[in-house]
Amino acid sequence: MSLLLVGHWNGSSDPAAQDERAQYLSALQEALPHEEWLLQPPTDPAQAARVEVAIVANPPAGSLQGLPQLKLIQSVWAGVDKLLNDATLPSAVPLARMVDPAMNEAMVHTALWAVLSLHRRFFELQAQQREGVWHALKYRRASEWRVLVLGLGELGGRVARALAGQGYAVSGWSTRELTLPGVACSHGEDALAWELASANTVVNLLPLTLATRDFFDARRLAQFKKGSTLVNLARGAHVVEVDLLAALDSGQIGHAVLDVFQQEPLPSEHRFWTHPQVTVLPHTAAQTDARTAAAVVAANVLAVRAGRPLLHEVQRQRGY
Amino acid sequence: MSLLLVGHWNGSSDPAAQDERAQYLSALQEALPHEEWLLQPPTDPAQAARVEVAIVANPPAGSLQGLPQLKLIQSVWAGVDKLLNDATLPSAVPLARMVDPAMNEAMVHTALWAVLSLHRRFFELQAQQREGVWHALKYRRASEWRVLVLGLGELGGRVARALAGQGYAVSGWSTRELTLPGVACSHGEDALAWELASANTVVNLLPLTLATRDFFDARRLAQFKKGSTLVNLARGAHVVEVDLLAALDSGQIGHAVLDVFQQEPLPSEHRFWTHPQVTVLPHTAAQTDARTAAAVVAANVLAVRAGRPLLHEVQRQRGY
Repeated sequence: MSLLLVGHWNGSSDPAAQDERAQYLSALQEALPHEEWLLQPPTDPAQAARVEVAIVANPPAGSLQGLPQLKLIQSVWAGVDKLLNDATLPSAVPLARMVDPAMNEAMVHTALWAVLSLHRRFFELQAQQREGVWHALKYRRASEWRVLVLGLGELGGRVARALAGQGYAVSGWSTRELTLPGVACSHGEDALAWELASANTVVNLLPLTLATRDFFDARRLAQFKKGSTLVNLARGAHVVEVDLLAALDSGQIGHAVLDVFQQEPLPSEHRFWTHPQVTVLPHTAAQTDARTAAAVVAANVLAVRAGRPLLHEVQRQRGY
Repeated sequence: MSLLLVGHWNGSSDPAAQDERAQYLSALQEALPHEEWLLQPPTDPAQAARVEVAIVANPPAGSLQGLPQLKLIQSVWAGVDKLLNDATLPSAVPLARMVDPAMNEAMVHTALWAVLSLHRRFFELQAQQREGVWHALKYRRASEWRVLVLGLGELGGRVARALAGQGYAVSGWSTRELTLPGVACSHGEDALAWELASANTVVNLLPLTLATRDFFDARRLAQFKKGSTLVNLARGAHVVEVDLLAALDSGQIGHAVLDVFQQEPLPSEHRFWTHPQVTVLPHTAAQTDARTAAAVVAANVLAVRAGRPLLHEVQRQRGY
């Protein structure tokens, strides 16, 4: 039997993407040293019949068709929204997403950096430096800075706890009922409106599902406290970008830190690039670390062979 | 008896400085409601003879002369180097410096922001945004990013522990022998050379004394690991600025985050303002919070009256 590794690098000539494949393959071979590897979707039926596990990193649609012995689809990406949109994805095969300790750490760090930058006004201080202005800006105690974390899963939960650990007044909101120690948690539309109206910074770590697509539209952005700030570390499709631009232009939103966009790379003519109240990150809030991810993949390959429960199995009807 | 409040605002017409005095006075009057206050150094000997405590925020030299009943000089600034340079400072009166919980928190946050910015390459990503470049930059695990904290007092100790809490490989160095739980600590010149040669980021929180003035000169900067980064949150006089500029120009130092300078405000023609590898902050790493500082002042006023030991008394021969 063999393992298939396919990703966005298949059919891409970008050297960075090829380099990424090489890193995954090297880490996976170290974690699973006795396997047979396939690096392209098989075209030969005999070869296809030998594929037991597919390890995927946002592969081209259709990559997992015609694999009769497939027992596990393991994503090395945390978000599986693009994968689930592939109508040819085998529906009866268990699907697991990546929860990688290195990625968790990186996401916490990006969120901390963004919240510190907004709370302590470091973006404004950096703009002052470009203007040659020496002027200390007032700031509040962290306990007077309310941060609302949307999404309380693996990533959102860690981010909320880390921010609370730095003294911020953190609350959490999720689409289904969840609780976190030390963080005031709520769910449902009424609670959301109240939370949005009192937060100084909103950090988005919701999963992308039908229910959360276009979450930040004009109506929702109008519920924010005037001049408050948004950090989007989840998916570009959560944000109606023209609505966010209008809210930034009117001062309804004071600043946005955006790691993800409707179209990536962000098109060169997009107004986000040059908007003084927008910080653009190139989808780098949390890179999967091939070494730590390989350990999770290996654990799930062994689990599926032994008939044990999988780590981080996706509930397809829920969407994550 | 009366309390004297003097600061850099005395003899200044800057509205921000006057505003700062008003905030201190209001917070102090709330913490010490039954006192008589003087807001200028007294010129009348009878008035001077009634001054029991001087509460100072970097006052003009000579402000504390001719106060025969003075029992305590309480700084609301953490650093007392400028005060100790005033030859007219009464030498027999106990001197206490400020350790303010709000300032501790702010300093930890500034250090965290600076280290996250350097480790996760956010300064480079922000420069890329200005160029319209979409390119994810690689970064290491925090455990692979060595941070050396210089100075392990109230502020340095907290900063070192907070960085360790975020997964960084933290070590600490101080001029005298100190230990911190969870942080590898050293002292002495030999240890310093080794630590500087292996750190990715050096965070300076040393007190300014004769021994630490001009600490970062050409010789010391040459001991840094090539391309490593410096965060100066202590005093401008720790850094020989022409030597740092030369080290930045040669690539010996990859980036510097500077909150303090030889001359403040930083002169408009100074190369730090426009150097692409320098982040200039306007001495705002940690502002004293008048409310929390007033509680510390009140505790020391009561201590001196009751003959109890002072909080944070300065050892003048040591310099802090």
